[in-house]
Amino acid sequence: MEKLKKYVSVKDEDHFYHQGAVELLIFNFLLILTILTIWLFKNHRFRFLHETGGAMLYGLLMGLIIRYVTKSPDVESGTVYECEKLKSGPSTLLINITNQVYEYQYKREISHHNVNGHQGNAMLQKMTFDPSIFFNILLPPIIFHAGYSLKKRHFFRNLGSILTYAFLGTAISCIVIGLIMYGFVKAMVHIGQLKQWEFHFTDCLFFGSLMSATDPVTVLAIFHELNVDTDLYTLLFGESVLNDAVAIVLTHSISIYSPKENPNAFDAAAFFQSVGNFLGIFAGSFAMGSSYAVITALISFMHLTKFTKLCEFPVLETGLFFLLSWTAFLSAEAAGLTGIVAVLFCGVTQAHYTYNNLSPDSRMRTKQLFEFMNFLAENVIFCYMGLALFTFQNHIFNPLFIFGALVAVFVARASNIYPLSFLLNLGRKQKIPRNFQHMMMFSGLRGAIAFALAIRDTDSQPKQMMFTTALLIVFFTVWVFGGGTTPMLTWLQIRVGVDPDEDLKAKAANKSASNLDKNTTKAESAWLFRIWYGFDHKYLKPLLTHTGPPLTSTLPEWCNPVARLLTSPSAYGDQLKDGDTDYIINNDELTENYEPSAHIPVPAQDNTGSIQATGREDIQEGDLGLGGYKLQLQHTACQPQKNSLA
Amino acid sequence: MEKLKKYVSVKDEDHFYHQGAVELLIFNFLLILTILTIWLFKNHRFRFLHETGGAMLYGLLMGLIIRYVTKSPDVESGTVYECEKLKSGPSTLLINITNQVYEYQYKREISHHNVNGHQGNAMLQKMTFDPSIFFNILLPPIIFHAGYSLKKRHFFRNLGSILTYAFLGTAISCIVIGLIMYGFVKAMVHIGQLKQWEFHFTDCLFFGSLMSATDPVTVLAIFHELNVDTDLYTLLFGESVLNDAVAIVLTHSISIYSPKENPNAFDAAAFFQSVGNFLGIFAGSFAMGSSYAVITALISFMHLTKFTKLCEFPVLETGLFFLLSWTAFLSAEAAGLTGIVAVLFCGVTQAHYTYNNLSPDSRMRTKQLFEFMNFLAENVIFCYMGLALFTFQNHIFNPLFIFGALVAVFVARASNIYPLSFLLNLGRKQKIPRNFQHMMMFSGLRGAIAFALAIRDTDSQPKQMMFTTALLIVFFTVWVFGGGTTPMLTWLQIRVGVDPDEDLKAKAANKSASNLDKNTTKAESAWLFRIWYGFDHKYLKPLLTHTGPPLTSTLPEWCNPVARLLTSPSAYGDQLKDGDTDYIINNDELTENYEPSAHIPVPAQDNTGSIQATGREDIQEGDLGLGGYKLQLQHTACQPQKNSLA
Repeated sequence: MEKLKKYVSVKDEDHFYHQGAVELLIFNFLLILTILTIWLFKNHRFRFLHETGGAMLYGLLMGLIIRYVTKSPDVESGTVYECEKLKSGPSTLLINITNQVYEYQYKREISHHNVNGHQGNAMLQKMTFDPSIFFNILLPPIIFHAGYSLKKRHFFRNLGSILTYAFLGTAISCIVIGLIMYGFVKAMVHIGQLKQWEFHFTDCLFFGSLMSATDPVTVLAIFHELNVDTDLYTLLFGESVLNDAVAIVLTHSISIYSPKENPNAFDAAAFFQSVGNFLGIFAGSFAMGSSYAVITALISFMHLTKFTKLCEFPVLETGLFFLLSWTAFLSAEAAGLTGIVAVLFCGVTQAHYTYNNLSPDSRMRTKQLFEFMNFLAENVIFCYMGLALFTFQNHIFNPLFIFGALVAVFVARASNIYPLSFLLNLGRKQKIPRNFQHMMMFSGLRGAIAFALAIRDTDSQPKQMMFTTALLIVFFTVWVFGGGTTPMLTWLQIRVGVDPDEDLKAKAANKSASNLDKNTTKAESAWLFRIWYGFDHKYLKPLLTHTGPPLTSTLPEWCNPVARLLTSPSAYGDQLKDGDTDYIINNDELTENYEPSAHIPVPAQDNTGSIQATGREDIQEGDLGLGGYKLQLQHTACQPQKNSLA
Repeated sequence: MEKLKKYVSVKDEDHFYHQGAVELLIFNFLLILTILTIWLFKNHRFRFLHETGGAMLYGLLMGLIIRYVTKSPDVESGTVYECEKLKSGPSTLLINITNQVYEYQYKREISHHNVNGHQGNAMLQKMTFDPSIFFNILLPPIIFHAGYSLKKRHFFRNLGSILTYAFLGTAISCIVIGLIMYGFVKAMVHIGQLKQWEFHFTDCLFFGSLMSATDPVTVLAIFHELNVDTDLYTLLFGESVLNDAVAIVLTHSISIYSPKENPNAFDAAAFFQSVGNFLGIFAGSFAMGSSYAVITALISFMHLTKFTKLCEFPVLETGLFFLLSWTAFLSAEAAGLTGIVAVLFCGVTQAHYTYNNLSPDSRMRTKQLFEFMNFLAENVIFCYMGLALFTFQNHIFNPLFIFGALVAVFVARASNIYPLSFLLNLGRKQKIPRNFQHMMMFSGLRGAIAFALAIRDTDSQPKQMMFTTALLIVFFTVWVFGGGTTPMLTWLQIRVGVDPDEDLKAKAANKSASNLDKNTTKAESAWLFRIWYGFDHKYLKPLLTHTGPPLTSTLPEWCNPVARLLTSPSAYGDQLKDGDTDYIINNDELTENYEPSAHIPVPAQDNTGSIQATGREDIQEGDLGLGGYKLQLQHTACQPQKNSLA
């Protein structure tokens, strides 16, 4: 008896300390291998395999090994026990086995047909993550980083187009995939390939929405490395970032769409409820994310003006920034909204306001921290995708369904990009040329988000088939299209080696003499965005950062006492430049210090002698740290404080 | 039926996405509050509360609120179910409840008397971490950071004393606490305060070993801020870092000490087995940690010499560094050794060799990354300690035992510091003065390690009593002694405002004319360390880094072909300075670029035109980021690569 207890207790400890270690070791090993391989490839300028593709490949090989080499059937874990006394599954279960009480934690509900998957290789089971890890741990840093490193100047120049592709395009893509898959499923049932399963139209739409999340990380990395035309880069990057958010919320809305009666019939009430859900969740998450960023901006702003010793504590500052951004995610989750969407807009807003208020050291730290987290999380996900092909136990491979899905994905991408580009070109001064459209069509890779959305729910057989299909489409697109990016760029004769800032100037200069620049800018931004810019520049920026004109000059007369209270003393230096709100698109804080040349006004000279005046940076935005850059920071204002006790 | 299923499935999702979010939100909120408070305190130079003390205080208040304000008894989770069919606890349990299969994961074994603690407030249960989180997630970055930020020059100057305090001192402390507690327990049983429990001598020793891990994080932060005498800082920091490792291995050895017959009688065989275990685990972990660091050094060394584009990929470099260091931890755990000890020595070795080979950007990134992780992990642990006082459900408060433990801890600290200092002063040229000894005695705070060791095992009632006692001693020492550091420094008239480098020079100059410096250094290092230094300088440094003389000149003639292969081309620049191995203590890579003055030789001019030659840093070692420093890095060698396709 005593012996058995000892044995079980040792087994328990082994379970925690050693088995967990072995699984993590496997991941570490894969990541190290990936890094070394990519390092080698980068040195040889071999661009056919990006690190994510490499990670997936190594994951695949490791999955193969685990599946066919390690064989350790754990008999007991596959048996189903009957417990008549329980009514529903409690969160913790205390079980008395031969006079010892064991604690078990609720994990999930399993469909009857999946029970078999739980018999057999214990190693395979252990290598299978909880799907919530993707949404709660791995995706947030990736998405935040995308928002935080957005090249805002170019992003806002193309905002209209990006929003069109992201919202309208994703909706089109979702519906087209849904319709094609529904046709396919009907046909397959007809020829006897699919039988008893209930494959509703909503399931097809669900598949359509999850497959609409594009993730051209491979393509963007190559674009970045080769300095491809900035407008193309921005269109693609902006679209992929926003479209993730749209696809996540869309998938969620479709999954909770529940018509009252026949699940195949169209139920207008349920449909409108879903649309309402979509809008509510999206807007709520947006608001939640931005408000946390505004709080961070206010705190860091307050500290910059009220306390002077701020720049001595970059760790505290970075910690606060990190925690508040994470809180945005958690609050959205806790409120039933979508944390990923909240964290995306939090990132964008942090970059827009808070970034200005941080000390130069913290700016670099936050950028590098999120860059590092993004790098690790991305490679872990792609490794795991490779592994999942062999370690996931409930795959349902259906060649016809996979073929249909591939066709649907390409048709949907085409009916998103080409018609919308045509429509957008009607309104755009600077057209989206044909070769850009082809490149965007080609860059419709599927990646982490599609995978995470598919693995979130693999309970029923249709969902398992969708998961398997999504996984294979990710493999196919990442390897084939990711690898073919460089040849495709050459073939489509797309400009490479473009300096983003020179490019903007050149384009402006091309069109008009230097003083017509204003008009170009004006013409390209829609009126809605110009109003927003005006508001942002006149009220929000002065309130939340040290840039822009002082509030005392922009607010009406009667607000003066309040305005004076809220304005940073350094803002008065800007007073002379007040009024030229047309320039604000160029007056972007992330790039404003970038070689201020004649026709871009020198912004925000900080008279308090604090960071802005002395700090000079040209960290390339969105830089994945894979390009060498010159780094020059000097705190002349803050000297380490010494002898304060003596 | 369908309704119920829906309900359970929604509950499940809520459980994952929302409940977890709420708990993390509480932690985030506490950390944000801590940061803001500490920011305020730092600005007002209020040094009585360190961030860890603040975190603990806020945790305590939050624990109080959760305990007495939220009341949500979860009836079902406290019930014990009988399962006759099972023989032992499988790792996953599938349970069929009203025709639905639920998966439960094995968590732990619970003693019968603890079952009651599982009834009641569900919130309290959720706020209780799995103890393995401390050892697998929170402690490793803290310990690695301690090793990586060791001020090596001063550390090695005092190595003999530090090792004496860490090994001999911890052993003395453990035995003294064990003996006193055993006496106390005997007395308590005698007067009827303790009854049926089996409180063996080994339990007392176990308590002694876990209470021997000192953690003067508060004191060291104040020392750092005030620039207290470097020798005192180094003695205290070095002792606390190594003594953690010793205490962890000691606790492990004692916990697996199992005499064959009567557990109270002394069993020589079991005792020597425990000693053997201690030595084996310590040496194994040391070897494991250092060898991973050596691998990292070799990889980064190889990349620096063989490939030239290294400095373009700081993210890859940082990623590799991070992953290999983590792998050291995981490998040690997987091999049944102590990961924490491995990661400590990995950190020290990484700083000694790998740091030299990193690009300037990666040096800064790795330092800042671990500093940030250390900051967060430390504050989470201290927050959790505060919370645990109210949320942990199996506390056993025994005032007499707590009083006894407090007495024992102080007596043990005194019998560690004073006798050992006396013995060390017999051999040391530069004595440890009385006021330093008093300060070291005073700085015997208990913290994260003691807590983590105590919470690791809280199954039996003696262990629970130990946990409660350890927690209260941590509170007491952190608040009282941590808060009293500044007055104590003034009272003991300890020098503050010392520049560590000036200090070393001044001390050397004090003793002798400038050319007697060598002798001083010689006299202070024991012969064993001089041999090690010679070996390190002649063979290891040239092999693993770019500093030191070329191997061709240090290895015997017949090794020349091999030596030429292994030597970095940049090492030949050092040839002139070969032979002055007495200087190596000053020739420390972390400080070598620090204002090379006349009597410290300028080291390792890198002839390849790579990083060493152009990079110039004066990041203060061990800097917690709380002091402003000047940062100036320039990659002149690496320009972003452009136009490579065109």
